[in-house]
Amino acid sequence: MLQIQSFAAGKWIAPSAKARPIYSAVTSDQIAQAGSALDTQAMLDHARNVGGPALRKLTFHDRARRLKTLALHLKAHKKPLYQLSYTTGATHADSQIDIDGGITTMLVFASKGRRELPDAHVYLDGELEQLSRNGTFMGQHICTPMLGAAVHINAYNFPVWGMLEKLAPTLLAGVPAIIKPATSTVHVAEAAFRIMVESEIFPEGSIQFIAGGSGGLLGQLNAQDSVAFTGSADTALMLRSSKHLLQNSVRFTAEQDSLNASILGPDATVGTPEFDLFIDEAYREITTKAGQKCTAIRRIIAPEALVNPVIEALSAKLDTVQIGDPAARETTMGALVSNAQRADVQARLEALSTEAKRVYGTNKAPLENGAFMSPQLLHCANPDAAKAIHEVEAFGPVSTIMPYRDLPHAAALANRGGGSLVASVITHDPSVASTLAMGIAANHGRLYFNDRDSMAEATGHGAPLPHMVHGGPGRAGGGEELGGIRGVMHYMQRTAIQGSPRILAAVGQTWLPGAPIVEAKQHPFRRTFEELELGESLLTDAREITLENIEHFAHFTGDTFYAHMDETAAKANPFFPGRVAHGYLLLSFAAGLFVEPNPGPVLANTGLNNLSFQKPVSAGDSIRARLTVKRKTKRTEDYGEVRWHVELTNQDTEMVATYELLTMVAYTQ
Amino acid sequence: MLQIQSFAAGKWIAPSAKARPIYSAVTSDQIAQAGSALDTQAMLDHARNVGGPALRKLTFHDRARRLKTLALHLKAHKKPLYQLSYTTGATHADSQIDIDGGITTMLVFASKGRRELPDAHVYLDGELEQLSRNGTFMGQHICTPMLGAAVHINAYNFPVWGMLEKLAPTLLAGVPAIIKPATSTVHVAEAAFRIMVESEIFPEGSIQFIAGGSGGLLGQLNAQDSVAFTGSADTALMLRSSKHLLQNSVRFTAEQDSLNASILGPDATVGTPEFDLFIDEAYREITTKAGQKCTAIRRIIAPEALVNPVIEALSAKLDTVQIGDPAARETTMGALVSNAQRADVQARLEALSTEAKRVYGTNKAPLENGAFMSPQLLHCANPDAAKAIHEVEAFGPVSTIMPYRDLPHAAALANRGGGSLVASVITHDPSVASTLAMGIAANHGRLYFNDRDSMAEATGHGAPLPHMVHGGPGRAGGGEELGGIRGVMHYMQRTAIQGSPRILAAVGQTWLPGAPIVEAKQHPFRRTFEELELGESLLTDAREITLENIEHFAHFTGDTFYAHMDETAAKANPFFPGRVAHGYLLLSFAAGLFVEPNPGPVLANTGLNNLSFQKPVSAGDSIRARLTVKRKTKRTEDYGEVRWHVELTNQDTEMVATYELLTMVAYTQ
Repeated sequence: MLQIQSFAAGKWIAPSAKARPIYSAVTSDQIAQAGSALDTQAMLDHARNVGGPALRKLTFHDRARRLKTLALHLKAHKKPLYQLSYTTGATHADSQIDIDGGITTMLVFASKGRRELPDAHVYLDGELEQLSRNGTFMGQHICTPMLGAAVHINAYNFPVWGMLEKLAPTLLAGVPAIIKPATSTVHVAEAAFRIMVESEIFPEGSIQFIAGGSGGLLGQLNAQDSVAFTGSADTALMLRSSKHLLQNSVRFTAEQDSLNASILGPDATVGTPEFDLFIDEAYREITTKAGQKCTAIRRIIAPEALVNPVIEALSAKLDTVQIGDPAARETTMGALVSNAQRADVQARLEALSTEAKRVYGTNKAPLENGAFMSPQLLHCANPDAAKAIHEVEAFGPVSTIMPYRDLPHAAALANRGGGSLVASVITHDPSVASTLAMGIAANHGRLYFNDRDSMAEATGHGAPLPHMVHGGPGRAGGGEELGGIRGVMHYMQRTAIQGSPRILAAVGQTWLPGAPIVEAKQHPFRRTFEELELGESLLTDAREITLENIEHFAHFTGDTFYAHMDETAAKANPFFPGRVAHGYLLLSFAAGLFVEPNPGPVLANTGLNNLSFQKPVSAGDSIRARLTVKRKTKRTEDYGEVRWHVELTNQDTEMVATYELLTMVAYTQ
Repeated sequence: MLQIQSFAAGKWIAPSAKARPIYSAVTSDQIAQAGSALDTQAMLDHARNVGGPALRKLTFHDRARRLKTLALHLKAHKKPLYQLSYTTGATHADSQIDIDGGITTMLVFASKGRRELPDAHVYLDGELEQLSRNGTFMGQHICTPMLGAAVHINAYNFPVWGMLEKLAPTLLAGVPAIIKPATSTVHVAEAAFRIMVESEIFPEGSIQFIAGGSGGLLGQLNAQDSVAFTGSADTALMLRSSKHLLQNSVRFTAEQDSLNASILGPDATVGTPEFDLFIDEAYREITTKAGQKCTAIRRIIAPEALVNPVIEALSAKLDTVQIGDPAARETTMGALVSNAQRADVQARLEALSTEAKRVYGTNKAPLENGAFMSPQLLHCANPDAAKAIHEVEAFGPVSTIMPYRDLPHAAALANRGGGSLVASVITHDPSVASTLAMGIAANHGRLYFNDRDSMAEATGHGAPLPHMVHGGPGRAGGGEELGGIRGVMHYMQRTAIQGSPRILAAVGQTWLPGAPIVEAKQHPFRRTFEELELGESLLTDAREITLENIEHFAHFTGDTFYAHMDETAAKANPFFPGRVAHGYLLLSFAAGLFVEPNPGPVLANTGLNNLSFQKPVSAGDSIRARLTVKRKTKRTEDYGEVRWHVELTNQDTEMVATYELLTMVAYTQ
């Protein structure tokens, strides 16, 4: 029998005498026990005083690189996790969602961390705010890691994915985590956790693990800590009602019950690719993980005329399901996690049956041992009068089909769920999509559209992706996880910073207009990535723009727009005083003014951002450019990106154009 | 005596027999009564069924324009508000902060709404997410208005600003509001509300008003409603503990107690401009609104050696305060709002006095009638051992000075507040600023830096600005308001949208790469703003790039970078296969390919975004451009902005560059 351990303040702690039993979903035999006596205050202290400071010493990119290493390490060591996963009733495909899906989620965060976060300790949130006329007092929002611990309370259904999807953004943010998985599958989570902690890829104190109950932990949290909960609405309500958490404004996010809907578009009649797709999606959501998915389709909403065809087609498809040993590759549906869970689903099925008639499935267990059950399809003829089908979540292979009259009715039915994680709409008609989106978006954390165009690549109604937010309003708990960098921000504090540009530059670890510059003694394009400093700046010579230049450029490029060619017509245009130089002429001349022709550290100009032409340039005007190093970001082993702020001014030092220039610069000469 | 009315479901409701008295802060006489018997369910229904749908019919820009009109209307009718404001103890300057400050906040939201939100019903949050290899399945986050009512519970100290700062983002989001101000200054709020509602600038049902208690309102809310509370921590805790709110995941944001700190930098010694500035800021925060400001400086944290000089200078400055009739222009400090409030402050002062010694101020009331009190400066010699000074907020003209040894100690003391709305740091040393920012940002919603560079334009430690978030972690309530468009998002639901580009374009009301295009039958630059459709697209002819072109461009512009001029050197560069065309040459030729030379609706190219060079172009390659209308936004009476997605491809249809082109296009020919 497995002895599941906790990992607290750097030490493994064996189960205590009060440990709880864990049963195989397949044989119903006890296979493990878990539950340790823990000093939760010491765990918190360890996170706050050891893990947090060590994580905060690393930059976002440092942490992103370690996340990638950690994910690849898990991938290399994942095999034993599959064997454990089968004991929870999960098939091979279910286990892939859990194990490989979790690893992929971590890899996406590693990659987004490198691409979308700076190689620094402070994240700049949004744009500079001009708070004063002369620009001596400006605003910038920053995000910095919270100084406490992130407590993750995970559900039983995806012990690995559930752990990694919370852990990846937390570690990327620079915050240590204390993980408390659901006990019924804690043996899988512990095995995955052990691989991570023994790798020592993240500093000591970054991750701790509670097998069994969390004791007094929640009562010891403060406002620098946070709780991310996934599980039942009842438990969520109990936890979030804690006076201690409320009094201390402890961030609490919940992802709980959800009666997710899938709507078949009126255009998706029998014979269309969308009708078949709809059946496939519904089948997958009923059978995957035996329906124990917070995102599974609980309510199938179909046009009145299509209800019977959907029942027929879906029933035929459900006939093909192979229920059996989860470890066998031919099995397409495994067991529920436990007999207790099956009993719970059956009780809820009874509640639903007062409003809906079973049209597929039996009460008979498909196998003698284990928590297996047959998929169940219910039909509710009068969904307007019904209540339970919109409110009671049977967390198993159960779904209810109901008819709708028109799109507003379909939207009203979807919204009857009172807030869901996801709703899907299978339609090829963009106007159906946009009408339903406006009708139901406010009640849903995610809307999944699928049709013949996207079906080959679509990821499925039920799959939360690291790029997109996961969570939903109302019944779904009102929380939000994932969503790319948004998910990282959940573990950071946003702070509005006000001050002079010089001070903001120091706080934000980036140069900004108005902050002091350092006049380059050497052409900055001759300086390596390492040598260049933030604020290092070059003012070029001036170049006069002649009418000949303008005409020549026009004929050479073919850009003979009248504003450049015809004085009278140009004057009539509200933007121009008369004939003016081409914007691209100015950019090109500016490049000519600041280029350094010979090979050097600057390898390439890869792009340009936020180009704004601010004042027209007429013949006889002259322009010069000022380039200033704004931000540096390492990109490869050999070179990094340098972002330059460029200002073009005329002979009266009026601003002609501003832009951000992106270059790749070698680390060494 | 004023009879303060509620405005419920389109009707004014007089005070009931149970109405509560309102007293003048100056004379202590009763001047008004408020408290109506209200059908709060009818109010909610009115907001949900009348106000919400009418607001959601308008676009963000429609609502922004109305906000501007409303703010200007208030400005034109503000005079009577001043007379009422004086009765609350507010001086003329205090009333300006409240009344004009509120109007300005509304104007900033109106302006940001036009500049930063689309002229549409859906806000696109963040970038497109590439969820599939071939791009047939993509992701985009959108925000749409919540479908219920926003309940605003406001504090007594700024009856106008407090109402408008919550109302502006709510209306901009498209959500109706039910406003419940604090009773002690509800007569000021009601007068301002009356001006707004009688203007009929926003549709019926957009705004309702509760004078007195809110009855059972909070128990009738659901997840599409929200509560934004400003007031005491005790009331906030009572409200947010409501099982109904928790069970229904009703959004609840609180802005409550806060023991804001101001830190004097070690560099800001006597004689520096920063030392004098620090005294000015502290004086202003103690005396403005008689210290009844959630952002006032409660804790003055100074280097050990500077504590006595600060006490001396601040005491001298406090000697100049003119306490008296708030309506008199020479008065620099008015009364507390009521005798009850003064008694509360005095009780808390006693709690503080167990740890800190009074160094300025007396117990004697400066005037016989009214809730006047003298400013109070306390000195706490041992702030590490103290508790009350970090936890007890005396909401009046009271501040405590304490010494720090070094920057980590200063940060630790600031953080002892357990989460504050704001902390200020007066320093001219960027390294002091960045060290303290990293030390205290996570505990603060706002950090205000000031020094000699910014002092002429800085807005003051205590001033929340519409551009910057207002709120703070922990003791401050863990909420967030304002912050520009972030504040609007508090009244919207973020939803992850997944689907084919064609479907995403319809849902997001914008064109995106991969969505269907409409091949232009006429050159799109000959089409007016009104005529142009999203997805309308032009593919230009191809143009070959010759070596002669490259050399010519190099010599003409001066851009003789070796990658364009020297085959061997270019080949050695990791980005180039050999000599390549200049990026700016490609942009210029592209403009030449798609330009329409004669006067027409396209007036100017005003800028360019997200230019990314994706593949080098060598001599002999040819390029062509595809321009597609991505988004249209009205800007003036005569023309609007059209954003074009531009793709440059080579002869093998490989992507050479992509960018977004910004043009201004006339509405008519």
